[in-house]
Amino acid sequence: MLQLISENKSFGGWHKKFSHHSNKTNCTMQFAIFLPPQASENRKVPVLYWLSGLTCTDENFMQKAGAQKMAAQLGIAIVAPDTSPRGEQVANDDAYDLGQGAGFYLNATQAPWKEHYQMYDYIVHELPALIEQNFPVNQKRAISGHSMGGHGALTIALKNPQNYVSVSAFSPICNPVNCPWGEKAFSAYLGEDKSSWLQYDSCELLHGATAILPMRIEQGTQDNFLSDQLKPESLLNIAKNKPFDVQLNMQEGYDHSYYFIASFIDEHLAFHAQYLN
Amino acid sequence: MLQLISENKSFGGWHKKFSHHSNKTNCTMQFAIFLPPQASENRKVPVLYWLSGLTCTDENFMQKAGAQKMAAQLGIAIVAPDTSPRGEQVANDDAYDLGQGAGFYLNATQAPWKEHYQMYDYIVHELPALIEQNFPVNQKRAISGHSMGGHGALTIALKNPQNYVSVSAFSPICNPVNCPWGEKAFSAYLGEDKSSWLQYDSCELLHGATAILPMRIEQGTQDNFLSDQLKPESLLNIAKNKPFDVQLNMQEGYDHSYYFIASFIDEHLAFHAQYLN
Repeated sequence: MLQLISENKSFGGWHKKFSHHSNKTNCTMQFAIFLPPQASENRKVPVLYWLSGLTCTDENFMQKAGAQKMAAQLGIAIVAPDTSPRGEQVANDDAYDLGQGAGFYLNATQAPWKEHYQMYDYIVHELPALIEQNFPVNQKRAISGHSMGGHGALTIALKNPQNYVSVSAFSPICNPVNCPWGEKAFSAYLGEDKSSWLQYDSCELLHGATAILPMRIEQGTQDNFLSDQLKPESLLNIAKNKPFDVQLNMQEGYDHSYYFIASFIDEHLAFHAQYLN
Repeated sequence: MLQLISENKSFGGWHKKFSHHSNKTNCTMQFAIFLPPQASENRKVPVLYWLSGLTCTDENFMQKAGAQKMAAQLGIAIVAPDTSPRGEQVANDDAYDLGQGAGFYLNATQAPWKEHYQMYDYIVHELPALIEQNFPVNQKRAISGHSMGGHGALTIALKNPQNYVSVSAFSPICNPVNCPWGEKAFSAYLGEDKSSWLQYDSCELLHGATAILPMRIEQGTQDNFLSDQLKPESLLNIAKNKPFDVQLNMQEGYDHSYYFIASFIDEHLAFHAQYLN
Protein backbone atom coordinates (compact mmCIF):
# COMPACT_ATOMS: atom_id res chain seq x y z
CA MET A 1 0.00 0.00 0.00
CA LEU A 2 1.39 3.36 -1.06
CA GLN A 3 1.02 6.37 1.22
CA LEU A 4 1.18 9.75 -0.50
CA ILE A 5 3.54 12.08 1.39
CA SER A 6 3.45 15.13 -0.90
CA GLU A 7 2.75 16.19 -4.45
CA ASN A 8 3.77 19.19 -6.54
CA LYS A 9 2.68 20.11 -10.02
CA SER A 10 5.79 20.31 -12.20
CA PHE A 11 6.04 21.14 -15.92
CA GLY A 12 2.42 20.14 -16.48
CA GLY A 13 3.03 16.79 -14.77
CA TRP A 14 3.39 15.78 -11.14
CA HIS A 15 6.19 15.19 -8.68
CA LYS A 16 4.88 12.82 -6.01
CA LYS A 17 6.52 11.34 -2.97
CA PHE A 18 5.34 8.08 -1.39
CA SER A 19 6.16 5.75 1.47
CA HIS A 20 5.41 2.02 1.57
CA HIS A 21 6.39 -1.11 3.43
CA SER A 22 9.03 -3.08 1.59
CA ASN A 23 9.08 -6.85 1.94
CA LYS A 24 12.62 -6.94 0.63
CA THR A 25 14.23 -4.38 2.93
CA ASN A 26 11.76 -5.17 5.74
CA CYS A 27 11.15 -1.54 6.60
CA THR A 28 9.32 1.57 5.40
CA MET A 29 10.83 2.95 2.20
CA GLN A 30 10.27 6.27 0.45
CA PHE A 31 10.51 7.08 -3.24
CA ALA A 32 9.65 9.96 -5.55
CA ILE A 33 8.10 9.74 -9.00
CA PHE A 34 7.81 12.35 -11.73
CA LEU A 35 4.83 11.67 -13.95
CA PRO A 36 4.97 13.62 -17.22
CA PRO A 37 1.79 15.28 -18.50
CA GLN A 38 1.33 12.53 -21.12
CA ALA A 39 0.85 9.81 -18.47
CA SER A 40 -2.75 8.61 -18.22
CA GLU A 41 -4.70 5.37 -18.10
CA ASN A 42 -5.00 5.69 -21.88
CA ARG A 43 -1.32 6.32 -22.42
CA LYS A 44 1.18 4.48 -20.33
CA VAL A 45 4.65 5.99 -20.37
CA PRO A 46 8.10 4.41 -19.98
CA VAL A 47 10.19 4.86 -16.82
CA LEU A 48 13.74 5.94 -16.08
CA TYR A 49 14.94 4.65 -12.70
CA TRP A 50 17.48 7.01 -11.10
CA LEU A 51 19.80 5.68 -8.38
CA SER A 52 21.39 8.37 -6.22
CA GLY A 53 24.78 8.53 -4.56
CA LEU A 54 26.12 8.38 -1.02
CA THR A 55 24.15 10.39 1.60
CA CYS A 56 21.27 11.06 -0.82
CA THR A 57 17.56 10.34 -0.56
CA ASP A 58 14.88 10.48 -3.25
CA GLU A 59 15.00 14.28 -2.99
CA ASN A 60 18.44 15.22 -4.35
CA PHE A 61 17.79 14.27 -7.95
CA MET A 62 14.23 15.59 -8.05
CA GLN A 63 15.24 18.95 -6.58
CA LYS A 64 18.62 19.54 -8.18
CA ALA A 65 18.99 17.73 -11.51
CA GLY A 66 16.50 19.83 -13.47
CA ALA A 67 15.34 16.73 -15.38
CA GLN A 68 11.60 17.37 -15.36
CA LYS A 69 11.40 19.76 -18.30
CA MET A 70 12.97 17.33 -20.76
CA ALA A 71 11.18 14.34 -19.21
CA ALA A 72 7.88 16.18 -19.72
CA GLN A 73 8.79 16.88 -23.34
CA LEU A 74 9.80 13.28 -23.99
CA GLY A 75 6.95 11.71 -22.03
CA ILE A 76 9.18 9.75 -19.65
CA ALA A 77 8.40 9.06 -15.99
CA ILE A 78 11.30 9.15 -13.52
CA VAL A 79 11.45 7.11 -10.32
CA ALA A 80 13.98 8.05 -7.64
CA PRO A 81 14.23 5.53 -4.79
CA ASP A 82 16.10 6.06 -1.54
CA THR A 83 19.73 4.92 -1.28
CA SER A 84 19.26 2.48 1.60
CA PRO A 85 16.77 1.14 4.12
CA ARG A 86 16.02 3.67 6.89
CA GLY A 87 14.72 3.80 10.42
CA GLU A 88 15.70 3.44 14.05
CA GLN A 89 15.59 -0.36 13.82
CA VAL A 90 17.88 -0.40 10.77
CA ALA A 91 21.62 -0.95 11.33
CA ASN A 92 23.69 2.16 10.77
CA ASP A 93 27.18 3.60 11.04
CA ASP A 94 28.43 7.10 11.84
CA ALA A 95 30.39 7.26 8.58
CA TYR A 96 28.71 8.79 5.53
CA ASP A 97 29.82 5.88 3.34
CA LEU A 98 28.37 2.95 5.29
CA GLY A 99 24.90 2.15 6.57
CA GLN A 100 21.91 4.39 6.03
CA GLY A 101 22.36 6.49 2.89
CA ALA A 102 24.97 4.04 1.60
CA GLY A 103 23.20 0.83 0.57
CA PHE A 104 25.36 0.25 -2.53
CA TYR A 105 22.43 -1.48 -4.32
CA LEU A 106 23.45 -4.98 -3.20
CA ASN A 107 21.99 -7.76 -1.04
CA ALA A 108 23.94 -7.88 2.22
CA THR A 109 24.85 -11.30 3.59
CA GLN A 110 26.53 -10.27 6.84
CA ALA A 111 25.11 -9.31 10.26
CA PRO A 112 23.92 -6.77 11.26
CA TRP A 113 23.27 -5.57 7.70
CA LYS A 114 21.52 -8.49 6.05
CA GLU A 115 18.20 -8.00 7.84
CA HIS A 116 17.38 -4.80 5.91
CA TYR A 117 20.12 -4.05 3.37
CA GLN A 118 18.58 -5.89 0.41
CA MET A 119 18.63 -2.94 -1.96
CA TYR A 120 19.45 -5.03 -5.04
CA ASP A 121 16.27 -7.06 -4.73
CA TYR A 122 14.31 -3.94 -3.87
CA ILE A 123 15.45 -2.02 -6.95
CA VAL A 124 15.43 -4.94 -9.40
CA HIS A 125 12.24 -6.70 -8.33
CA GLU A 126 10.00 -5.06 -5.75
CA LEU A 127 10.06 -1.42 -6.82
CA PRO A 128 9.36 -1.87 -10.55
CA ALA A 129 6.47 -4.21 -9.75
CA LEU A 130 5.05 -1.63 -7.35
CA ILE A 131 5.47 1.20 -9.86
CA GLU A 132 3.89 -0.76 -12.71
CA GLN A 133 0.96 -1.76 -10.51
CA ASN A 134 0.19 1.72 -9.22
CA PHE A 135 1.01 4.23 -11.97
CA PRO A 136 0.19 4.67 -15.67
CA VAL A 137 3.53 3.32 -16.88
CA ASN A 138 4.47 0.56 -19.27
CA GLN A 139 7.26 -2.00 -18.89
CA LYS A 140 9.87 -0.11 -20.87
CA ARG A 141 12.54 0.71 -18.30
CA ALA A 142 15.85 2.53 -18.41
CA ILE A 143 18.25 2.99 -15.51
CA SER A 144 20.76 5.66 -14.56
CA GLY A 145 22.47 7.01 -11.48
CA HIS A 146 25.27 9.02 -9.93
CA SER A 147 28.45 7.85 -8.17
CA MET A 148 27.33 4.97 -5.89
CA GLY A 149 24.10 5.10 -7.91
CA GLY A 150 26.07 4.94 -11.14
CA HIS A 151 27.63 1.74 -9.79
CA GLY A 152 24.12 0.55 -9.00
CA ALA A 153 22.78 1.37 -12.47
CA LEU A 154 25.68 -0.28 -14.31
CA THR A 155 25.74 -3.46 -12.23
CA ILE A 156 21.96 -3.89 -12.27
CA ALA A 157 21.82 -3.35 -16.05
CA LEU A 158 24.74 -5.70 -16.67
CA LYS A 159 23.12 -8.42 -14.54
CA ASN A 160 19.58 -7.92 -15.88
CA PRO A 161 19.77 -6.73 -19.50
CA GLN A 162 16.34 -8.25 -20.16
CA ASN A 163 14.74 -5.82 -17.69
CA TYR A 164 15.95 -2.55 -19.24
CA VAL A 165 16.37 -0.98 -22.66
CA SER A 166 19.37 1.25 -21.88
CA VAL A 167 21.70 2.31 -19.06
CA SER A 168 23.67 5.44 -18.27
CA ALA A 169 25.69 6.81 -15.39
CA PHE A 170 27.25 10.01 -14.09
CA SER A 171 30.58 9.66 -12.29
CA PRO A 172 30.00 5.98 -11.49
CA ILE A 173 32.10 3.88 -9.12
CA CYS A 174 33.24 1.53 -11.89
CA ASN A 175 35.42 -0.92 -10.02
CA PRO A 176 34.25 -1.03 -6.38
CA VAL A 177 36.33 -4.10 -5.52
CA ASN A 178 39.39 -1.91 -6.14
CA CYS A 179 38.54 1.40 -4.44
CA PRO A 180 38.21 2.58 -0.82
CA TRP A 181 34.45 3.20 -0.90
CA GLY A 182 33.75 -0.22 -2.38
CA GLU A 183 36.22 -2.14 -0.25
CA LYS A 184 34.80 -0.67 2.93
CA ALA A 185 31.15 -1.25 2.03
CA PHE A 186 31.59 -4.69 0.46
CA SER A 187 33.68 -5.91 3.43
CA ALA A 188 30.88 -4.91 5.78
CA TYR A 189 27.89 -6.02 3.73
CA LEU A 190 29.35 -9.09 1.98
CA GLY A 191 32.19 -10.20 4.26
CA GLU A 192 35.88 -10.73 3.72
CA ASP A 193 35.58 -13.36 0.97
CA LYS A 194 36.28 -11.16 -2.03
CA SER A 195 34.94 -13.71 -4.49
CA SER A 196 31.47 -12.79 -3.23
CA TRP A 197 32.12 -9.15 -4.20
CA LEU A 198 32.59 -9.78 -7.89
CA GLN A 199 28.88 -10.11 -8.66
CA TYR A 200 28.53 -6.40 -7.82
CA ASP A 201 31.53 -5.08 -9.74
CA SER A 202 30.89 -3.45 -13.12
CA CYS A 203 34.34 -4.28 -14.46
CA GLU A 204 33.98 -7.94 -13.56
CA LEU A 205 30.45 -8.08 -14.97
CA LEU A 206 31.50 -6.39 -18.21
CA HIS A 207 34.41 -8.79 -18.49
CA GLY A 208 32.01 -11.72 -18.37
CA ALA A 209 29.26 -10.23 -20.52
CA THR A 210 28.36 -11.54 -23.95
CA ALA A 211 26.14 -8.58 -24.83
CA ILE A 212 25.35 -5.26 -23.17
CA LEU A 213 22.66 -2.63 -23.34
CA PRO A 214 23.29 0.76 -24.93
CA MET A 215 25.52 2.42 -22.31
CA ARG A 216 26.53 6.08 -21.83
CA ILE A 217 28.80 7.36 -19.05
CA GLU A 218 29.46 11.02 -18.21
CA GLN A 219 32.53 11.91 -16.14
CA GLY A 220 33.91 15.31 -15.14
CA THR A 221 37.66 15.75 -15.43
CA GLN A 222 37.81 17.87 -12.24
CA ASP A 223 35.96 15.34 -10.12
CA ASN A 224 37.87 14.96 -6.82
CA PHE A 225 37.01 11.26 -6.69
CA LEU A 226 38.01 10.40 -10.25
CA SER A 227 41.33 8.61 -9.80
CA ASP A 228 40.85 7.07 -6.34
CA GLN A 229 37.23 5.98 -6.32
CA LEU A 230 35.61 6.07 -9.76
CA LYS A 231 38.13 4.68 -12.30
CA PRO A 232 36.09 4.77 -15.51
CA GLU A 233 39.23 3.91 -17.50
CA SER A 234 39.16 0.42 -15.96
CA LEU A 235 35.74 -0.14 -17.45
CA LEU A 236 36.76 1.31 -20.80
CA ASN A 237 39.85 -0.91 -20.99
CA ILE A 238 37.68 -4.00 -20.64
CA ALA A 239 35.18 -2.74 -23.20
CA LYS A 240 38.01 -2.16 -25.70
CA ASN A 241 38.70 -5.88 -25.87
CA LYS A 242 35.04 -6.65 -26.41
CA PRO A 243 32.66 -5.86 -29.25
CA PHE A 244 30.91 -3.40 -26.90
CA ASP A 245 30.25 0.27 -27.51
CA VAL A 246 30.64 1.94 -24.12
CA GLN A 247 30.33 5.69 -24.63
CA LEU A 248 32.48 7.43 -21.99
CA ASN A 249 32.33 11.23 -22.24
CA MET A 250 35.06 12.97 -20.26
CA GLN A 251 33.72 16.49 -19.65
CA GLU A 252 36.43 19.09 -19.19
CA GLY A 253 36.31 21.09 -15.96
CA TYR A 254 33.20 19.49 -14.42
CA ASP A 255 33.16 18.16 -10.85
CA HIS A 256 31.19 15.56 -8.87
CA SER A 257 28.23 17.81 -8.02
CA TYR A 258 24.66 18.13 -9.20
CA TYR A 259 25.79 21.17 -11.24
CA PHE A 260 27.53 18.58 -13.42
CA ILE A 261 24.54 16.24 -13.54
CA ALA A 262 22.17 19.10 -14.42
CA SER A 263 24.47 20.17 -17.27
CA PHE A 264 24.13 16.83 -19.05
CA ILE A 265 20.90 15.23 -17.80
CA ASP A 266 18.95 16.35 -20.86
CA GLU A 267 21.40 14.51 -23.10
CA HIS A 268 21.02 11.38 -20.99
CA LEU A 269 17.23 11.62 -21.17
CA ALA A 270 17.43 11.97 -24.95
CA PHE A 271 19.81 8.99 -25.06
CA HIS A 272 17.33 6.81 -23.14
CA ALA A 273 14.37 8.13 -25.12
CA GLN A 274 15.79 6.57 -28.27
CA TYR A 275 15.17 3.16 -26.72
CA LEU A 276 12.22 3.90 -24.42
CA ASN A 277 9.90 5.47 -26.97
CA MET B 1 37.37 42.10 -1.20
CA LEU B 2 35.64 38.98 -2.46
CA GLN B 3 36.55 35.58 -1.03
CA LEU B 4 35.82 32.61 -3.28
CA ILE B 5 34.02 29.89 -1.30
CA SER B 6 33.37 27.37 -4.08
CA GLU B 7 32.98 27.06 -7.82
CA ASN B 8 31.32 24.52 -10.09
CA LYS B 9 31.31 24.36 -13.85
CA SER B 10 27.71 24.50 -15.03
CA PHE B 11 26.37 24.42 -18.61
CA GLY B 12 29.71 25.61 -19.97
CA GLY B 13 29.72 28.55 -17.53
CA TRP B 14 30.46 28.80 -13.82
CA HIS B 15 28.50 28.79 -10.60
CA LYS B 16 30.60 30.59 -7.99
CA LYS B 17 29.94 31.39 -4.38
CA PHE B 18 31.62 34.30 -2.57
CA SER B 19 31.72 35.99 0.82
CA HIS B 20 32.58 39.63 1.45
CA HIS B 21 32.29 42.29 4.12
CA SER B 22 29.28 44.52 3.54
CA ASN B 23 29.44 48.14 4.64
CA LYS B 24 25.67 48.39 4.45
CA THR B 25 24.74 45.37 6.57
CA ASN B 26 27.92 45.64 8.64
CA CYS B 27 28.66 41.92 8.53
CA THR B 28 29.98 39.19 6.24
CA MET B 29 27.56 38.42 3.40
CA GLN B 30 27.49 35.55 0.93
CA PHE B 31 26.16 35.50 -2.61
CA ALA B 32 26.26 33.18 -5.61
CA ILE B 33 26.75 34.13 -9.23
CA PHE B 34 26.16 32.14 -12.39
CA LEU B 35 28.40 33.34 -15.20
CA PRO B 36 27.26 32.10 -18.61
CA PRO B 37 29.88 30.82 -21.08
CA GLN B 38 29.65 34.04 -23.09
CA ALA B 39 30.95 36.19 -20.21
CA SER B 40 34.50 37.43 -20.76
CA GLU B 41 36.48 40.64 -20.55
CA ASN B 42 35.70 41.09 -24.24
CA ARG B 43 32.00 40.46 -23.82
CA LYS B 44 30.26 41.78 -20.76
CA VAL B 45 26.88 40.20 -20.12
CA PRO B 46 23.73 41.56 -18.43
CA VAL B 47 22.64 40.43 -14.96
CA LEU B 48 19.43 39.11 -13.47
CA TYR B 49 19.27 39.65 -9.70
CA TRP B 50 17.25 36.95 -7.95
CA LEU B 51 15.85 37.62 -4.46
CA SER B 52 14.87 34.51 -2.52
CA GLY B 53 12.10 33.92 -0.03
CA LEU B 54 11.83 33.30 3.71
CA THR B 55 14.42 30.87 5.18
CA CYS B 56 16.46 30.78 1.96
CA THR B 57 20.11 31.56 1.27
CA ASP B 58 21.90 32.03 -2.05
CA GLU B 59 21.73 28.25 -2.54
CA ASN B 60 18.03 27.51 -3.02
CA PHE B 61 17.65 29.19 -6.38
CA MET B 62 20.98 28.02 -7.76
CA GLN B 63 20.34 24.40 -6.77
CA LYS B 64 16.62 24.06 -7.42
CA ALA B 65 15.36 26.48 -10.07
CA GLY B 66 17.10 24.90 -13.04
CA ALA B 67 17.77 28.34 -14.53
CA GLN B 68 21.34 27.83 -15.72
CA LYS B 69 20.60 26.09 -19.02
CA MET B 70 18.47 28.91 -20.37
CA ALA B 71 20.71 31.59 -18.83
CA ALA B 72 23.66 30.00 -20.64
CA GLN B 73 21.72 30.01 -23.91
CA LEU B 74 20.68 33.64 -23.50
CA GLY B 75 24.03 34.87 -22.15
CA ILE B 76 22.64 36.23 -18.90
CA ALA B 77 24.47 36.20 -15.56
CA ILE B 78 22.41 35.52 -12.43
CA VAL B 79 23.25 36.87 -8.97
CA ALA B 80 21.56 35.34 -5.93
CA PRO B 81 22.21 37.22 -2.67
CA ASP B 82 21.35 35.99 0.80
CA THR B 83 17.98 36.94 2.33
CA SER B 84 19.34 38.77 5.38
CA PRO B 85 22.47 39.64 7.30
CA ARG B 86 23.91 36.63 9.14
CA GLY B 87 26.17 35.83 12.06
CA GLU B 88 26.28 35.42 15.81
CA GLN B 89 26.44 39.17 16.33
CA VAL B 90 23.36 39.78 14.14
CA ALA B 91 19.98 40.09 15.85
CA ASN B 92 17.74 37.08 15.30
CA ASP B 93 14.43 35.50 16.27
CA ASP B 94 13.36 31.90 16.68
CA ALA B 95 10.54 32.34 14.15
CA TYR B 96 11.23 31.50 10.50
CA ASP B 97 9.63 34.74 9.36
CA LEU B 98 11.66 37.28 11.36
CA GLY B 99 15.38 37.90 11.72
CA GLN B 100 18.02 35.91 9.90
CA GLY B 101 16.63 34.48 6.67
CA ALA B 102 13.82 37.05 6.71
CA GLY B 103 15.31 40.44 5.89
CA PHE B 104 12.37 41.59 3.72
CA TYR B 105 14.70 43.73 1.55
CA LEU B 106 14.16 46.90 3.60
CA ASN B 107 16.26 49.23 5.76
CA ALA B 108 15.34 48.63 9.41
CA THR B 109 14.95 51.69 11.63
CA GLN B 110 14.28 49.94 14.94
CA ALA B 111 16.58 48.36 17.54
CA PRO B 112 17.92 45.71 17.63
CA TRP B 113 17.48 45.29 13.89
CA LYS B 114 18.76 48.53 12.43
CA GLU B 115 22.45 47.78 13.03
CA HIS B 116 22.58 45.07 10.34
CA TYR B 117 19.21 44.77 8.60
CA GLN B 118 19.88 47.21 5.76
CA MET B 119 19.08 44.82 2.97
CA TYR B 120 17.45 47.44 0.74
CA ASP B 121 20.64 49.48 0.52
CA TYR B 122 22.69 46.32 0.11
CA ILE B 123 20.63 45.02 -2.82
CA VAL B 124 20.04 48.38 -4.52
CA HIS B 125 23.45 49.97 -4.10
CA GLU B 126 26.30 47.91 -2.65
CA LEU B 127 25.83 44.57 -4.37
CA PRO B 128 25.42 45.79 -7.98
CA ALA B 129 28.51 48.02 -7.58
CA LEU B 130 30.47 45.04 -6.28
CA ILE B 131 29.26 42.77 -9.08
CA GLU B 132 30.01 45.30 -11.80
CA GLN B 133 33.47 45.92 -10.39
CA ASN B 134 34.49 42.27 -10.11
CA PHE B 135 32.82 40.35 -12.96
CA PRO B 136 32.55 40.68 -16.73
CA VAL B 137 29.04 42.15 -16.62
CA ASN B 138 27.53 45.31 -18.04
CA GLN B 139 25.05 47.66 -16.35
CA LYS B 140 21.91 46.12 -17.84
CA ARG B 141 20.08 44.71 -14.84
CA ALA B 142 16.81 42.87 -14.35
CA ILE B 143 15.35 41.76 -11.05
CA SER B 144 13.13 38.88 -9.97
CA GLY B 145 12.36 36.88 -6.87
CA HIS B 146 10.07 34.50 -5.01
CA SER B 147 7.56 35.20 -2.22
CA MET B 148 9.38 37.59 0.19
CA GLY B 149 11.90 37.98 -2.65
CA GLY B 150 9.06 38.70 -5.09
CA HIS B 151 8.06 41.52 -2.73
CA GLY B 152 11.68 42.67 -2.76
CA ALA B 153 11.94 42.59 -6.56
CA LEU B 154 8.68 44.47 -7.11
CA THR B 155 9.32 47.17 -4.51
CA ILE B 156 12.93 47.72 -5.55
CA ALA B 157 11.97 47.96 -9.23
CA LEU B 158 9.05 50.30 -8.50
CA LYS B 159 11.31 52.57 -6.42
CA ASN B 160 14.29 52.46 -8.80
CA PRO B 161 13.03 52.04 -12.37
CA GLN B 162 16.16 53.76 -13.67
CA ASN B 163 18.33 50.92 -12.30
CA TYR B 164 16.63 48.00 -14.07
CA VAL B 165 15.20 47.12 -17.47
CA SER B 166 12.49 44.68 -16.32
CA VAL B 167 11.04 43.02 -13.23
CA SER B 168 9.29 39.74 -12.55
CA ALA B 169 8.15 37.75 -9.55
CA PHE B 170 6.94 34.31 -8.53
CA SER B 171 4.27 34.19 -5.81
CA PRO B 172 5.18 37.66 -4.48
CA ILE B 173 3.91 39.16 -1.24
CA CYS B 174 2.10 41.98 -3.03
CA ASN B 175 0.61 43.94 -0.14
CA PRO B 176 2.78 43.34 2.93
CA VAL B 177 1.12 46.11 4.97
CA ASN B 178 -2.05 43.99 4.81
CA CYS B 179 -0.85 40.43 5.50
CA PRO B 180 0.49 38.57 8.54
CA TRP B 181 4.05 38.09 7.25
CA GLY B 182 4.39 41.76 6.37
CA GLU B 183 2.68 43.13 9.46
CA LYS B 184 4.93 41.09 11.74
CA ALA B 185 8.17 41.96 9.97
CA PHE B 186 7.40 45.62 9.31
CA SER B 187 6.30 46.15 12.94
CA ALA B 188 9.62 44.79 14.12
CA TYR B 189 11.93 46.38 11.56
CA LEU B 190 10.11 49.70 10.99
CA GLY B 191 8.08 50.23 14.16
CA GLU B 192 4.40 50.74 14.81
CA ASP B 193 3.97 53.88 12.70
CA LYS B 194 2.38 52.33 9.65
CA SER B 195 3.03 55.35 7.46
CA SER B 196 6.69 54.29 7.45
CA TRP B 197 5.68 50.92 6.01
CA LEU B 198 4.19 52.26 2.81
CA GLN B 199 7.52 52.87 1.08
CA TYR B 200 8.00 49.07 1.02
CA ASP B 201 4.53 48.07 -0.18
CA SER B 202 4.14 47.18 -3.86
CA CYS B 203 0.45 48.15 -3.95
CA GLU B 204 1.17 51.57 -2.46
CA LEU B 205 4.14 52.10 -4.78
CA LEU B 206 2.16 51.07 -7.84
CA HIS B 207 -0.64 53.39 -6.79
CA GLY B 208 1.78 56.31 -6.77
CA ALA B 209 3.75 55.37 -9.87
CA THR B 210 3.67 57.36 -13.09
CA ALA B 211 5.46 54.72 -15.15
CA ILE B 212 6.60 51.15 -14.50
CA LEU B 213 9.04 48.69 -15.96
CA PRO B 214 7.88 45.69 -17.96
CA MET B 215 6.44 43.45 -15.20
CA ARG B 216 5.52 39.76 -15.18
CA ILE B 217 4.10 37.86 -12.19
CA GLU B 218 3.60 34.08 -11.96
CA GLN B 219 1.24 32.71 -9.31
CA GLY B 220 0.10 29.12 -8.66
CA THR B 221 -3.58 28.64 -7.93
CA GLN B 222 -2.89 25.92 -5.34
CA ASP B 223 -0.41 28.03 -3.37
CA ASN B 224 -1.29 27.67 0.33
CA PHE B 225 -0.30 31.29 0.96
CA LEU B 226 -2.26 32.82 -1.91
CA SER B 227 -5.26 34.38 -0.17
CA ASP B 228 -3.76 35.20 3.24
CA GLN B 229 -0.25 36.37 2.43
CA LEU B 230 0.30 37.04 -1.27
CA LYS B 231 -2.81 38.82 -2.65
CA PRO B 232 -1.78 39.46 -6.24
CA GLU B 233 -5.34 40.60 -7.05
CA SER B 234 -4.73 43.70 -4.89
CA LEU B 235 -1.87 44.68 -7.18
CA LEU B 236 -3.85 43.90 -10.31
CA ASN B 237 -6.79 46.00 -9.15
CA ILE B 238 -4.52 49.03 -8.82
CA ALA B 239 -2.91 48.39 -12.20
CA LYS B 240 -6.35 48.25 -13.84
CA ASN B 241 -6.96 51.91 -13.05
CA LYS B 242 -3.56 52.88 -14.46
CA PRO B 243 -2.11 52.75 -17.96
CA PHE B 244 0.15 49.92 -16.77
CA ASP B 245 0.52 46.47 -18.27
CA VAL B 246 1.05 44.13 -15.31
CA GLN B 247 1.08 40.58 -16.62
CA LEU B 248 -0.26 38.28 -13.89
CA ASN B 249 -0.31 34.62 -14.94
CA MET B 250 -2.40 32.42 -12.65
CA GLN B 251 -1.04 28.90 -13.17
CA GLU B 252 -3.59 26.17 -12.49
CA GLY B 253 -2.59 23.57 -9.92
CA TYR B 254 0.86 24.91 -9.03
CA ASP B 255 1.97 25.51 -5.44
CA HIS B 256 4.51 27.71 -3.62
CA SER B 257 7.53 25.43 -4.14
CA TYR B 258 10.60 25.46 -6.34
CA TYR B 259 8.82 22.86 -8.53
CA PHE B 260 6.61 25.79 -9.56
CA ILE B 261 9.52 28.19 -10.06
CA ALA B 262 11.44 25.64 -12.15
CA SER B 263 8.39 25.09 -14.36
CA PHE B 264 8.30 28.75 -15.46
CA ILE B 265 11.79 30.15 -14.88
CA ASP B 266 12.74 29.73 -18.54
CA GLU B 267 9.80 31.90 -19.56
CA HIS B 268 10.88 34.57 -17.07
CA LEU B 269 14.44 34.47 -18.38
CA ALA B 270 13.15 34.88 -21.92
CA PHE B 271 10.94 37.75 -20.74
CA HIS B 272 13.91 39.57 -19.21
CA ALA B 273 16.16 38.77 -22.18
CA GLN B 274 13.92 40.90 -24.42
CA TYR B 275 15.07 43.93 -22.45
CA LEU B 276 18.53 42.86 -21.30
CA ASN B 277 19.97 41.88 -24.68
